[in-house]
Amino acid sequence: MNVSFLGLGNMGRPIARNLLKAAVDLTVWNRSAARADELVAAGARRAETVADAARADVVCTMVADDAALEQIAWEGRLVELLPRGAIHVSMSTTSVALAEKLTAAHDARGATFVCAPVFGRPDAAAARKLFIVAAGPDPALDRCQPLFDAMGQRTFRIGQEPRLANLVKLSGNFLIASIIESLGEAFALVRKSGVDPNQYLELLTGTLFSAPIFRTYGSLIAERRYQPAGFKMPLGLKDITLALDAARAATVPMPLASLIRDHMIAALAQGFSDADWSALGELAARNAGIRA
Amino acid sequence: MNVSFLGLGNMGRPIARNLLKAAVDLTVWNRSAARADELVAAGARRAETVADAARADVVCTMVADDAALEQIAWEGRLVELLPRGAIHVSMSTTSVALAEKLTAAHDARGATFVCAPVFGRPDAAAARKLFIVAAGPDPALDRCQPLFDAMGQRTFRIGQEPRLANLVKLSGNFLIASIIESLGEAFALVRKSGVDPNQYLELLTGTLFSAPIFRTYGSLIAERRYQPAGFKMPLGLKDITLALDAARAATVPMPLASLIRDHMIAALAQGFSDADWSALGELAARNAGIRA
Amino acid sequence: MNVSFLGLGNMGRPIARNLLKAAVDLTVWNRSAARADELVAAGARRAETVADAARADVVCTMVADDAALEQIAWEGRLVELLPRGAIHVSMSTTSVALAEKLTAAHDARGATFVCAPVFGRPDAAAARKLFIVAAGPDPALDRCQPLFDAMGQRTFRIGQEPRLANLVKLSGNFLIASIIESLGEAFALVRKSGVDPNQYLELLTGTLFSAPIFRTYGSLIAERRYQPAGFKMPLGLKDITLALDAARAATVPMPLASLIRDHMIAALAQGFSDADWSALGELAARNAGIRA
Amino acid sequence: MNVSFLGLGNMGRPIARNLLKAAVDLTVWNRSAARADELVAAGARRAETVADAARADVVCTMVADDAALEQIAWEGRLVELLPRGAIHVSMSTTSVALAEKLTAAHDARGATFVCAPVFGRPDAAAARKLFIVAAGPDPALDRCQPLFDAMGQRTFRIGQEPRLANLVKLSGNFLIASIIESLGEAFALVRKSGVDPNQYLELLTGTLFSAPIFRTYGSLIAERRYQPAGFKMPLGLKDITLALDAARAATVPMPLASLIRDHMIAALAQGFSDADWSALGELAARNAGIRA
Repeated sequence: MNVSFLGLGNMGRPIARNLLKAAVDLTVWNRSAARADELVAAGARRAETVADAARADVVCTMVADDAALEQIAWEGRLVELLPRGAIHVSMSTTSVALAEKLTAAHDARGATFVCAPVFGRPDAAAARKLFIVAAGPDPALDRCQPLFDAMGQRTFRIGQEPRLANLVKLSGNFLIASIIESLGEAFALVRKSGVDPNQYLELLTGTLFSAPIFRTYGSLIAERRYQPAGFKMPLGLKDITLALDAARAATVPMPLASLIRDHMIAALAQGFSDADWSALGELAARNAGIRA
Repeated sequence: MNVSFLGLGNMGRPIARNLLKAAVDLTVWNRSAARADELVAAGARRAETVADAARADVVCTMVADDAALEQIAWEGRLVELLPRGAIHVSMSTTSVALAEKLTAAHDARGATFVCAPVFGRPDAAAARKLFIVAAGPDPALDRCQPLFDAMGQRTFRIGQEPRLANLVKLSGNFLIASIIESLGEAFALVRKSGVDPNQYLELLTGTLFSAPIFRTYGSLIAERRYQPAGFKMPLGLKDITLALDAARAATVPMPLASLIRDHMIAALAQGFSDADWSALGELAARNAGIRA
Repeated sequence: MNVSFLGLGNMGRPIARNLLKAAVDLTVWNRSAARADELVAAGARRAETVADAARADVVCTMVADDAALEQIAWEGRLVELLPRGAIHVSMSTTSVALAEKLTAAHDARGATFVCAPVFGRPDAAAARKLFIVAAGPDPALDRCQPLFDAMGQRTFRIGQEPRLANLVKLSGNFLIASIIESLGEAFALVRKSGVDPNQYLELLTGTLFSAPIFRTYGSLIAERRYQPAGFKMPLGLKDITLALDAARAATVPMPLASLIRDHMIAALAQGFSDADWSALGELAARNAGIRA
Repeated sequence: MNVSFLGLGNMGRPIARNLLKAAVDLTVWNRSAARADELVAAGARRAETVADAARADVVCTMVADDAALEQIAWEGRLVELLPRGAIHVSMSTTSVALAEKLTAAHDARGATFVCAPVFGRPDAAAARKLFIVAAGPDPALDRCQPLFDAMGQRTFRIGQEPRLANLVKLSGNFLIASIIESLGEAFALVRKSGVDPNQYLELLTGTLFSAPIFRTYGSLIAERRYQPAGFKMPLGLKDITLALDAARAATVPMPLASLIRDHMIAALAQGFSDADWSALGELAARNAGIRA
């Protein structure tokens, strides 16, 4: 089985490296070619164009957003050139609507589309600790499973329709953003009232809120440390907006998602474009008149 | 050191029992006296009135709300009769404003007020697994520490001002309610889109959301099982309203708390008075047009 | 019929003056006595205490808030001293809960409580252009009607229960605040996009939004002129909070009222305590990153 | 000057009729051709295709949404065939982004794009009472002015950039929706508390809220009469979503618009797809547990 991997950013590179380690016959491509050098040095074949990478048994894409994925699919001609019977595995967090469009486009040409976005940051990708949320036809998922095993610690299959994987991924990012927002408001309240933020954090994580996610975001907010960004505010806004788009398409109101979206926009308007999305906590502090 | 314990509800009884087990010299009182029988049988002294229980070194109160605590303090004459140098430990989740009032009232008579609300449900109380959030003057907290050790697994001291313990407790309930609300919206989205709720729950708790709190509330929402209530909706509304009152007093906006409060009121208006507060998830489902 | 008027602030003074002009036999009282001088010079009798003013056929009160009205009613002994068959007309915007309490208290002593809050600012009061929202038993309202006619341009009777007048008044202030909030957000959007705010205002008021209320608040927001305040932000917050309290008591969610309340608290936290409540528009501008 | 009018729906037909009455040399086109019959009988020329109508001095379009306008512009080849120096006047309420795209597309071929959406319903269109919100280069607006005069009672010019007219129109619909939402919540509160809705409406419109817009929407909500729809809920949702999209592009948070959007989605999920957008008031009633 030969595999192509398109998109060698902070997430794509460590994942591709793990595929190489697992002895996968790998072709790589990236829009700015230099990013591929390290992988080529490690044994991957370099594709000069998307078209050059499209003739594989499995083509994985891991790109920034809908626009980048659309470019690969249509301008780059992946949809046109992917062989009958081959699989396109989209690992990006992109829209539910685009997943539907790609499902139809690949179907029409006898190929299969699979969505497999991941939970985890670059360090988790490097450590093969990603969680993979996969959706698509079972035979295709079965064929991809060895690849997923090489990339992550566990794969969750959540249905035959590829778009469901994106939906679930977006809902997960919504849940994380909700935790950030709630921590931001809680810290603003206790901080302004005179409670020591570090003691407060210790109390939270020592009691009901022991999951690492509370520790991670709680300490960023307790220390008001929003640089360097692990996940930038504009990306957070992109994902919450995609979640709300999907929710509208399903006619599901999500008022908490709307609230978070408004706060993210306010954060961007007030200069937090380069900050981590946990800077929602700083917005809550500012709204409470707490000075930097 | 003799200790009185006032308020023998679902939380108060197991706590008082643990004090007896720790060989504390204990007097107990409850508005409806029958609730004290079991503890008296186990060795506690029965007080017929609040006044009868007020002359102790430490008086603990564990009651339903501000009104019940005010009644004990003023009509029941606890403030008047508590000896100089004695300590009143309020373990209820009551308002920050009442904590300020009781602090001043006890101070004026040479006694000390301490707030020590707890995180944990009755089963945690029985198992001595409560988390105790304590605030008050250090010498008073030091004297109470053996009692706290007999009640819970860990005590967090968060300041000299008693009211801060209530504030922190209320902020904790706000964080829990935020998790419920976000889960409710996420489940409405994925359920209506065709994802199996149990698979979704497994995915959440198997990845980033592994804390027991996600498991607890996630499974209630996945199964739409809101009876019997572990913590009833009206109590949730009471606590969120107290949090918002404290936030207003501190001039801190908490838009997510406001959103939750509105949803709780809508839930009560639509018949969820006896349901667990996780029925916020059912409200989210209804708002999305998902039928029971 | 002799009438007492208690509370001679910016609203009370012009109203009392109009009663004198209508040849009403008038006794006046104010906490700071100097405020009564002008009315006494114009023919009113001065009461030294509330008690001194309480023995009248009709006692009108027009004070700042619940606390001031409670003080007159109980510490000042109005409830105790108001003669059987007499009427207490409360014209302040106070809580629904206090209206219920005063209804019961006066009833118990054979007097009648009436609520008659007003729409209109001091200039409208001076010009006898107030709108009076009256609720109470019909015979009492009939007896008060000549007084209402001397104060305002029109009286609306909205029920037998006095509290309903407060509820309706509070709902009216909520509607005004909603208009302010919506204008604030709309102006932030068009201003940041490059539309001239004055042209925009002309368009709004020249088309669908021709009511004076849009002109008044629209021009304050277009010119970002929030001083001097016609109605201060903290009073706005007081009224929205009272509306939400009443809504909670009636189990009615009011999410827009909650949103406004949060924005008012944020405005206070950011230094708008002395500003007009239309400074909600400035908060919207700030949230959009628009500089002063 | 010859003029083409494309889109003969409930708004387009009466507008085109008024152009004929003003002796404009008019060509008409509609996707379902029968809608043109009446105008052809009255003297208009019938175009069989968009292309057939594209070679005019001024081409007006009045269609349902972005998709319909895009189809006319690109598939229908209006952009390609509109003569150099000619003007495309878009009167639909469409997105700010599409206005930008069409501005660039027409510019590139030496034609001019103008946006001129309108305030007013079909009866206002028939009565030449529309308000026209126009934006575009001044010379183009000057040339269109006689047409605008034939269509409406007043034209507001709000800038040289066509997209600004759409922005302003969308902001106006947001303001209307805000009034509906606030009335819905206020009526829910007073109705559940026992105030007669019709008396309440009379009070509102007799005092501060005298503009026709309060009368119109207030009476629909007071009578709970949401059929037949003057402006259907899905169209309201479309416009609020476009306003939020434009606001996001301008980095302006609009939390009240978000709240309204969520309620509209909830209304659609609960069966109000054919109802007037004032059925937001019914949603508020339901949320308060008020039965139909």
